[in-house]
Amino acid sequence: MRPIDALVNSLSDARVLTDPDVIDSYARDRTFLEPGKPLGVVLAASRDDVVTTMKWASEHRVPVVPRGAGTGLAGASVAGDGAIILSLARMTAIRELSPADEIAVVEPGVITADLDRAAREHGLMYAPDPSSYEISTIGGNLATNAGGLRCVKYGVTRDSALGLEVVLADGRILDTGRRTMKGVTGYDLTGLFVGSEGTLGVITAATVRLRRAPAGPPATFAAEFGSLRDAGAAVSAIMAAGCQPSLMELLDRATLKAINDMRNFGLEAGTKAMLIGQSDAADGQAMAERMERICMDNGASFVAVSSSPQETEELIGLRRMAYDAKERLGACLVEDVCVPRSALPDMITSIEESAARHGVQICTVAHAGDGNVHPVFIFDRGMAEPPAEVWAAADEVFTRALELGGTLTGEHGVGLLKQRWLAMEAGPVAAEVQRGIKAVFDPLGILNPGKAI
Amino acid sequence: MRPIDALVNSLSDARVLTDPDVIDSYARDRTFLEPGKPLGVVLAASRDDVVTTMKWASEHRVPVVPRGAGTGLAGASVAGDGAIILSLARMTAIRELSPADEIAVVEPGVITADLDRAAREHGLMYAPDPSSYEISTIGGNLATNAGGLRCVKYGVTRDSALGLEVVLADGRILDTGRRTMKGVTGYDLTGLFVGSEGTLGVITAATVRLRRAPAGPPATFAAEFGSLRDAGAAVSAIMAAGCQPSLMELLDRATLKAINDMRNFGLEAGTKAMLIGQSDAADGQAMAERMERICMDNGASFVAVSSSPQETEELIGLRRMAYDAKERLGACLVEDVCVPRSALPDMITSIEESAARHGVQICTVAHAGDGNVHPVFIFDRGMAEPPAEVWAAADEVFTRALELGGTLTGEHGVGLLKQRWLAMEAGPVAAEVQRGIKAVFDPLGILNPGKAI
Repeated sequence: MRPIDALVNSLSDARVLTDPDVIDSYARDRTFLEPGKPLGVVLAASRDDVVTTMKWASEHRVPVVPRGAGTGLAGASVAGDGAIILSLARMTAIRELSPADEIAVVEPGVITADLDRAAREHGLMYAPDPSSYEISTIGGNLATNAGGLRCVKYGVTRDSALGLEVVLADGRILDTGRRTMKGVTGYDLTGLFVGSEGTLGVITAATVRLRRAPAGPPATFAAEFGSLRDAGAAVSAIMAAGCQPSLMELLDRATLKAINDMRNFGLEAGTKAMLIGQSDAADGQAMAERMERICMDNGASFVAVSSSPQETEELIGLRRMAYDAKERLGACLVEDVCVPRSALPDMITSIEESAARHGVQICTVAHAGDGNVHPVFIFDRGMAEPPAEVWAAADEVFTRALELGGTLTGEHGVGLLKQRWLAMEAGPVAAEVQRGIKAVFDPLGILNPGKAI
Repeated sequence: MRPIDALVNSLSDARVLTDPDVIDSYARDRTFLEPGKPLGVVLAASRDDVVTTMKWASEHRVPVVPRGAGTGLAGASVAGDGAIILSLARMTAIRELSPADEIAVVEPGVITADLDRAAREHGLMYAPDPSSYEISTIGGNLATNAGGLRCVKYGVTRDSALGLEVVLADGRILDTGRRTMKGVTGYDLTGLFVGSEGTLGVITAATVRLRRAPAGPPATFAAEFGSLRDAGAAVSAIMAAGCQPSLMELLDRATLKAINDMRNFGLEAGTKAMLIGQSDAADGQAMAERMERICMDNGASFVAVSSSPQETEELIGLRRMAYDAKERLGACLVEDVCVPRSALPDMITSIEESAARHGVQICTVAHAGDGNVHPVFIFDRGMAEPPAEVWAAADEVFTRALELGGTLTGEHGVGLLKQRWLAMEAGPVAAEVQRGIKAVFDPLGILNPGKAI
């Protein structure tokens, strides 16, 4: 009997998939990275299925690659040779939603936007909203500490995670954190698991914080600029003025053109950048108008404010279309640097210079209020991996981000994709203590090896 | 030569104190806990002093008890026999304050309120404000993940910590985190150190997040209630209505009486509880009036709203006086349970019942918006430790907090004081992984042994 047959026999509710073509479709994420030849896929239906899988994997020393919806952009759920893929996508229960305590207890396969909708029925919201939130799962969001558009005001996934139920590498169950707003009993294990990309344990439930939803729809502004630098200056001025936008997105010319080619919105020839911002505050309309004035003062060629939900949806829809529009241009290397806010104009200028120097097409969007910049390097879809000039340009972008006091990854994670630059940022002492922490939780090294650290 | 002489000789700038009486005054915090007989006190003036001390301590296997201002309420900086006390109180530099990036880089000895004042010169604030913020240090706040009055809106210390410079047990330097608003490179080491009570390393600098200060003074309301339960219900209703108070404090009759005895503010005979709340939002006055109405709807006997800075200061001053007023009554065992917000009335009722059952005087204040309740058990100042009936009542309070889905400590930490209850909350798997993490950073077990976990 092969080891995997023992796994199949011991799982009660889960299905195990072993067809190579089917396995391959579960072995990828949204990067270009090619998976190896995993053994199979477990579609876990319960925590018990996860415990059974981990005990079996520990016994047989089989690598386990946990997985949500596969929308990751750094290769964290790309599976290698001989691994078992552990999909949590079928664990979709919202176990509890307490409006009085403003918390929910959810399983990892819950789609992010579904939790937000469930919360809104009670006047609450689940704040973290990665661009993929209609298809990504809470488990994947937790594993990568996903950001999003609203986190300029409400913080990232970690800021909404209060407690976790985790299955450890050997099948033991660890409960971390709490149901309360505050708590300091012991070390912050919850925060440690969030963003650890499945390398420390498998999250089977999470207690997350909900927040009061704004009373009305947000007020939205859009501003077009003849230069990226002016747009960056407007962002700095808006934040410095204390406008507290609930969304502040910057799109460069290349991105706007890709979107316009997909759905014509009348892009002007002279527009080099667009800024889209929102305020969901009680005085949101006044705040949006204030942000509009700041854009004009910073050289915007066109500005509009709207509080019509339909117009707002169209504007935000443009932004959410950015990634699909770029994928039409070719294969994408999506990067994710984050710099101190004041360095945003320098960072964006540097990206443009690298694109020109290496003859590479780079489309850039930014969660500008956070200084989180996504340069997307386009390359020929026929290629197995990005050509040398793309890597060279990416190298420059990362180096520049670190020079500016920034980080390699604001919200996508390290996965496989950023391994080659990791040492530049983290240094040898951090690498050593992280390997030590990994060994505490996963002494056999079977949990998503080669990722995150 | 004694080992400590080698330390004295190798320290350049630091002073080493060895007078037993002086040592004793550095060996305590604000609890009743009696220290042992430490070897001496290092008054570190620089990171190099900390490195030297840790290398010496590793070489000689000497326990090190890091320390800020000693305002802790759980015994985390109470020093035992043979330890070296490492005071960071003289490292008081604000190395950098960047209004554009809304961050500051500070040394651990900076007084919390001093950082806040420095930030306010630029229209910013440092949000975490433990009641002790005029005397406590940033380093101590980080070590305990201190909360405070404003954290109902702005979060606890961890929510403002972006990156740390840490000296490890063996003297190596670890830089964690970042200067950016977001970042997911590797595990969350910053969050792990925050709240670890000096058991994983010694923080020698922190990059903290600042926030825009509100444009005007907050609007404040005070409400008096004939029953604690009504006050608790008003808190729940205020939070559920989405009022987003920036402060929401509850004081029970015993606390009010202690304050009134210290400074007469005209406490009425029928007043069983007072609620003090603030809104620092743009529509703060309207919001405070809305909270006032909710209090009236929930049976308040008297309500007043003010936006005069002087009246506000007086009201908040009453609250900040609470601990001093209680210390006049006797020795204090200060507890710190936190429950889901909806359980606040049950928790407070249960505390009153325990007080009556065991004949113990308990004065209770609560950061009510967070469900964080501080029952202060009063006992005879002549006693070395609380009498049996106080421990029995405290046992009941902790047990009840956990039954209600709460935690032993919302913001003070575990220290020595909560060691006896720790296993009730954390469970054996959490205890084991925490010991494993401790061993990664401190294999010799010299960093503040016996605390936190």
